[in-house]
Amino acid sequence: MKPSLPVAVVLSGCGVYDGTEITEAVGLLIALSQAGFSYRCYAPVREQYHVVDHFKGAPADGARNILTESARIARGAIQPLSAFKASEHCALAFPGGFGAAKNLTTFIDQGDKAQLYADVNSAVTDAMARKLPLLALCAAPLVLGIAARDAGLSGVRLTFGDCEGPAMNAALATWGQTHVVTPLEQACVDSKHRMISAPAYMYGDAKPAEVFASIQAAVKALDEMLAAA
Amino acid sequence: MKPSLPVAVVLSGCGVYDGTEITEAVGLLIALSQAGFSYRCYAPVREQYHVVDHFKGAPADGARNILTESARIARGAIQPLSAFKASEHCALAFPGGFGAAKNLTTFIDQGDKAQLYADVNSAVTDAMARKLPLLALCAAPLVLGIAARDAGLSGVRLTFGDCEGPAMNAALATWGQTHVVTPLEQACVDSKHRMISAPAYMYGDAKPAEVFASIQAAVKALDEMLAAA
Repeated sequence: MKPSLPVAVVLSGCGVYDGTEITEAVGLLIALSQAGFSYRCYAPVREQYHVVDHFKGAPADGARNILTESARIARGAIQPLSAFKASEHCALAFPGGFGAAKNLTTFIDQGDKAQLYADVNSAVTDAMARKLPLLALCAAPLVLGIAARDAGLSGVRLTFGDCEGPAMNAALATWGQTHVVTPLEQACVDSKHRMISAPAYMYGDAKPAEVFASIQAAVKALDEMLAAA
Repeated sequence: MKPSLPVAVVLSGCGVYDGTEITEAVGLLIALSQAGFSYRCYAPVREQYHVVDHFKGAPADGARNILTESARIARGAIQPLSAFKASEHCALAFPGGFGAAKNLTTFIDQGDKAQLYADVNSAVTDAMARKLPLLALCAAPLVLGIAARDAGLSGVRLTFGDCEGPAMNAALATWGQTHVVTPLEQACVDSKHRMISAPAYMYGDAKPAEVFASIQAAVKALDEMLAAA
C-alpha cells in the first residue's frame, strides 16, 4: 500500500546551470509515478540568483522568478514553497542542478558557511520534525547537509557520487556529516536520519538512462523506508 | 545491433505552453538511451512565437530564443537546426508541446493553412528524401502532417490521441492525411511512409509514468522500423 499523502517535490528553477536539472526533475516525477506515488510541486517565490544562457554556458542579462520558471517543468501545477505543510506529505524531495547551490542555499557564494534560504529552512525543519524522509539528487544533498548541521546532527550519510564535487564533499565534512562514495545507479540511504541521496548527474558523463536508474534507486529506497516506518 | 548514427531530436523551446513539452522531451531522451540509441539535439535559432508565464498560464513580456531555451533541456549539448544533415542520423524526432504549433509551424495563427518554418522544412525534406523514420509526440504530428501534404502524400496515418485536438484532427483531414485514434500507451505506426506518432500529453490528465510509456512505445516502434529496413 502506497501512502495516501503525496511526495513534495521542491524545484529551484528550470535548467541545470541556474535552476533545477531538468532530466532529474522529470525523471523523479516519472519514477515516483511509476512507483505509485502521487506528488505536489513547490518552488520559492524569489528571483533566481542569476540567469545563465545554457547554449553559451555564460551568465545572461535579465531576471527570472524561481517559481515562474519551475512551473515550466510542472506544467503549471505548482505552489509557492511557503505553502508547504509537512502534515500534507509523506516525504520531501529535491532534484539537483545548480539551483541547489544558487537558489535554495547560499553555497555558491558562501561555501561551507552556506545557509538555507528561509523558505527552504522552514520546509525542511517542518519535515524533519515530523520525521518525513528527505530525498535529494545530485547537488541537492547540500540542502540536507546544511539542514543536518543546523539541527545539530552529525555523521549523516550523504552522497555527491564520487569525487567530482570536492568543494561540496569538503563542506559536508566541515558540517560534521559523512560523504559516502556511491555508484551512479545506487542510492545512499541513511535509515537513522531518514535521508536518501543519489548521484544522478554528479557523474557528468552519465547517459539519461543511467541518470534515470539512479533516480529509480532513490525512489525504491524511499518506498522501502516508508514501508518500514 | 543499433544503428551507429544518432537520432536527431528537434526541440522548440522549454515549456509546454510556449515551447517543447519538457516531460516528453526528457522522456524521449531517456527512452532512446534505454533502447541503446545515441542522439543529438537541434533547435531553430529564432525568437519564440511568444513567452508564456507557466505559473499564471498567461502570456508574459519579453522575448526568448528557441535554441537558447531548448539548451536548458539539452544541458547545452544542442546545435542550430540549420546544421542538421539527414546523412548523419538514423531518424528525426519531435517531442510535443505548443512549440510545435507556435515555433516549428504557423498552425497557431493559420490553422489548416499552416506552413513549416523554413529550417524545419529543410530538415524534414532532407530526412524524407533519405527515408529516415520520422517520430512525433503529442501535438508534433502537426509537423509530419504538413510535411506529408507538402510532399504530395495522402493517407498518412498519424495520431493526436483521441478527440482532444479537434482543430488538429480536422486540419489533418484537410491535408489529406488520416487521424488514427490511439490509446495513451501505444504508438501509431505508418510503415509505408515511415512515420511514428504517440499521444503522450494529448491525454491531458495522463500521469508522468503513462506519458513515459507512450514515448517508450514510440521508441520501440522506431527500433522495429529500423531493424526491418
